[in-house]
Amino acid sequence: MGLTKHRRTTSIEDMRAIACHHDELTITDVPVPDIANNEVLIRVAAAGVNRADLHQRRGNYPPPPGASEILGVEVSGTVVEVGEHITEFRIGDHVCALLAGGGYAEFAAVPAAQVIPVPNAIESHAAAALPEAACTVVSNLVLTAHLQPGETLLIHGGSSGIGTHAIQLAKHLGARVAVTARTPEKLAACRELGADLAINYADEDFAAVLAAHGGADVILDIVGGNYLEANITALNTGGRLVIIGMQGGSRGTLDIGQLLAKRATVAGTTLRSRPTYGDGSKAEIVAATLELTLPLLANGTIRPVVDSVFPLAAAAEAHARLESGDAIGKVLLIVADDE
Amino acid sequence: MGLTKHRRTTSIEDMRAIACHHDELTITDVPVPDIANNEVLIRVAAAGVNRADLHQRRGNYPPPPGASEILGVEVSGTVVEVGEHITEFRIGDHVCALLAGGGYAEFAAVPAAQVIPVPNAIESHAAAALPEAACTVVSNLVLTAHLQPGETLLIHGGSSGIGTHAIQLAKHLGARVAVTARTPEKLAACRELGADLAINYADEDFAAVLAAHGGADVILDIVGGNYLEANITALNTGGRLVIIGMQGGSRGTLDIGQLLAKRATVAGTTLRSRPTYGDGSKAEIVAATLELTLPLLANGTIRPVVDSVFPLAAAAEAHARLESGDAIGKVLLIVADDE
Repeated sequence: MGLTKHRRTTSIEDMRAIACHHDELTITDVPVPDIANNEVLIRVAAAGVNRADLHQRRGNYPPPPGASEILGVEVSGTVVEVGEHITEFRIGDHVCALLAGGGYAEFAAVPAAQVIPVPNAIESHAAAALPEAACTVVSNLVLTAHLQPGETLLIHGGSSGIGTHAIQLAKHLGARVAVTARTPEKLAACRELGADLAINYADEDFAAVLAAHGGADVILDIVGGNYLEANITALNTGGRLVIIGMQGGSRGTLDIGQLLAKRATVAGTTLRSRPTYGDGSKAEIVAATLELTLPLLANGTIRPVVDSVFPLAAAAEAHARLESGDAIGKVLLIVADDE
Repeated sequence: MGLTKHRRTTSIEDMRAIACHHDELTITDVPVPDIANNEVLIRVAAAGVNRADLHQRRGNYPPPPGASEILGVEVSGTVVEVGEHITEFRIGDHVCALLAGGGYAEFAAVPAAQVIPVPNAIESHAAAALPEAACTVVSNLVLTAHLQPGETLLIHGGSSGIGTHAIQLAKHLGARVAVTARTPEKLAACRELGADLAINYADEDFAAVLAAHGGADVILDIVGGNYLEANITALNTGGRLVIIGMQGGSRGTLDIGQLLAKRATVAGTTLRSRPTYGDGSKAEIVAATLELTLPLLANGTIRPVVDSVFPLAAAAEAHARLESGDAIGKVLLIVADDE
């Protein structure tokens, strides 16, 4: 890109961050990152906790080449420094951002193309719940699956950070929304957010329930392998299955006969591995999210759903909460007081 | 649709057609079909032989609801009668058409939205090689996979009716084309049509060869189950696998981990089961084919590739030829002399 790192001009030299050694998370002092011409430096208010962080902690999901080794793929906070090429953000702006890594820290450097301004309506810490959820949902439901008004969307893990956001955007887009979840509390939370049909997957065969309700046109799936056959069964003609997680295994049996008969599509996507710029990039997805979702956040149509907050030093407890499967919405790490 | 059948006005009342009883194909006399307001009646010059016909003959692929029980999903010929609503075709027009069934006969009734005018450059019988191949290729490479200039397309069965057409259109679109086939003759035919890379799948691991040549951005696949894993391996980031046949089985193992890492898509499609009108319809695909492919047929950029022709009465021999796997291009049934 021809972008060179330059030495920072602020006086802050070190910061607290979470280091990860053999699965242990500890607070440590590291240098504040330098920013490139296309980047801003964010003083982090809060960081979102994601399953990617759990995998990275175990050594199963290395950060993309060039990314910070520090955990954390999304933050909220305040812009404290801007690169030479930056015109869209100024020091003092309240923002949230999609990171390739480095979110569990007091400061994070990030390309401006991955930064989203935070509307006044959204509390500064809660904004850390937005980048991954909002961008993942726009990327998959809108840019990949082209969800249409009147279509039925099935969301697996409806009460997850992504699920709670997806329910709200899909309802705004005029879709009928079905969700799966495991407990009455989670199913109730999904209904409250707008889900039309809430299926307890522990008690019911979701594909059969969907079939009785007209099938699914789009499925947003975090399960993967175990659900592949049932997902294809649940799809309507022209249906689109979008797989964004593999909590149920990385391999599955694909019924190609059904796929052809339904003229259906299976897409797999990730957000973190995408390049910053170009075709299919984070910049493209952030731009679409700014256009579609930001006004809905500003006017209260979509709200971030926060399950729980933990201080940065309690990152291990925050991980345990996400891993318990009991969270409804996002788990956040509070890094600094709100300004 | 509010379209009612009306009695024909021509004096022809009966026609020869191929009847199919317990896998046997015999010539029989049946009534000439009536046409609806939205249909034309075609005096058939030639009918294309397709794998769908082989499956239907064995009772494994019933025609769509409302379609003729007679085999045959594509013909060329002359318009001899037009429905009341028809303005785009006139009696005497040389055409070819995509049928839901009924092609192995002297006359075929078909919605005008599924009819393609035959350019003067194309011989009337050879035009029967076009509808399925041209529409399948536009539908899958253009409308589904959005093949881009500079991308690499892998075509399995490069010497098939669809493969020979796909090579020519893809080269016109500026793609790099790789094919698989089984014999030196077939590989040579593919190269002559423009294929840049011809892989003998009996001798070589096609996924490894593709990997050594930069991978595939789009794969057009007629194999299905057996190739699913290798196809995903051969795909690049953002790659699209489009499965249109299941000669290698209707089930396969999907490596969802690779699918996500590559942000790849697997689509299954068929042509015959599509509705005539509306979203994803034959009318939509024919319209796109008229716009993109018809000028290329008229100026000789794309030519129909005919393997062999058989008289209508020798339909069983034509089936045997297709089934042998030795055909290069289309197998046709000649129903009437060229006019």
